[in-house]
Amino acid sequence: MSDVRQRILVPGKMNQRVLDRLPDHFDPVFIAATDPALVTAELSSSVAGIAVQGKIPAEFVDVFPKLEIIANFGVGYDGVDAVHAAERGVMVTNTPDVLTEEVADTAIGLLLNTVRCFPVAEQWLRQGRWVKEGAFVLTPLTLRGRTVGLYGLGRIGLAIAKRLEAFGVSIAYHTRTPREGLAYTYYPTLKSMAEAVDTIIVIVPGTESTRRTVNAEVLQALGPQG
Amino acid sequence: MSDVRQRILVPGKMNQRVLDRLPDHFDPVFIAATDPALVTAELSSSVAGIAVQGKIPAEFVDVFPKLEIIANFGVGYDGVDAVHAAERGVMVTNTPDVLTEEVADTAIGLLLNTVRCFPVAEQWLRQGRWVKEGAFVLTPLTLRGRTVGLYGLGRIGLAIAKRLEAFGVSIAYHTRTPREGLAYTYYPTLKSMAEAVDTIIVIVPGTESTRRTVNAEVLQALGPQG
Repeated sequence: MSDVRQRILVPGKMNQRVLDRLPDHFDPVFIAATDPALVTAELSSSVAGIAVQGKIPAEFVDVFPKLEIIANFGVGYDGVDAVHAAERGVMVTNTPDVLTEEVADTAIGLLLNTVRCFPVAEQWLRQGRWVKEGAFVLTPLTLRGRTVGLYGLGRIGLAIAKRLEAFGVSIAYHTRTPREGLAYTYYPTLKSMAEAVDTIIVIVPGTESTRRTVNAEVLQALGPQG
Repeated sequence: MSDVRQRILVPGKMNQRVLDRLPDHFDPVFIAATDPALVTAELSSSVAGIAVQGKIPAEFVDVFPKLEIIANFGVGYDGVDAVHAAERGVMVTNTPDVLTEEVADTAIGLLLNTVRCFPVAEQWLRQGRWVKEGAFVLTPLTLRGRTVGLYGLGRIGLAIAKRLEAFGVSIAYHTRTPREGLAYTYYPTLKSMAEAVDTIIVIVPGTESTRRTVNAEVLQALGPQG
């Protein structure tokens, strides 16, 4: 192994764990933002990699002729112009899957909290009302007999579905094409699914093709109890 | 069927749904509490059943020579002196299982909320801090890599375990005797389980035999991260 450490640029904010470990393997350089005006000629000609937690536009990629990699700290890399980087032969990496299970846990937590009002019950307790007025009332809503429609069924969608099964909830889904080998009910349109279920969980990426798809018509189809 | 409706006594508070439906089938009489002094001679000799959401001590059972049934609105009937009632030939009923799934949902909700701080995050949002200070931080704790010990594994314990499995959590349990056909790790003592797990969920009845079993020694064994 060479003793010369590769020069890695960190523009703007970066997770502390990355900052702690970068000097072990690399020669890190820090600038405040992805602004070409902050890049000296010496930096421009020496940077081999960029570690980023945010955006890297095409014009910033072009500042570094020796750039080999953009290491994106995050699952989503929509902030990096990956097409342009690929054309330049620059590799773009992300951190897929690290948050799949956490996001699924969060979806179930939000569903339980919404249906069963646990945070409201906690406030009731903390405000001393349990002692003065008695137990928090049983909530009118429940997961029992509920049908949940998943809008999107990628890795996170499947992790949510697995959890929902254990709660005895009926599961439906809508994606562009049905997935094989699944026991869940498929709906070819979001509206037809909304008509059939009580609850919709949205786990599609926020892109132009999904923009405004959960519209008034879909919410209307979900119904007043939805 | 006879036109004479059985006389049912309702002492103290009762769920509204019961109050709504009782007159459809019975002749209900209401008194404020389970106090023999509130019972007239006519009432004493005519009551065939008691519908209760609370306590029925032995001495109150003895006030009604024609009593046939004590219908207890609730899963637990520890408030009713069932042994004495049985000796008198009085049936005692309860409503088992109706809340098993709800209690299991609640246990998972409390676990998620404790580990992932969702109610705190909700307050952060409602107080406008999301807009001013940015996203609520990722919590240091997670369900990943967590081992949960179930103290008690009856109907509710099994319903909780089923849900925990879907979250990918390792499951251990402590009961007086191991249950056959389960993949969960059995611990013959609460303390040995506490040493092996991060989290304990208690789902045993609150009786003399379980009183003060989760003591300082067990909490010590659970450890500072437990």
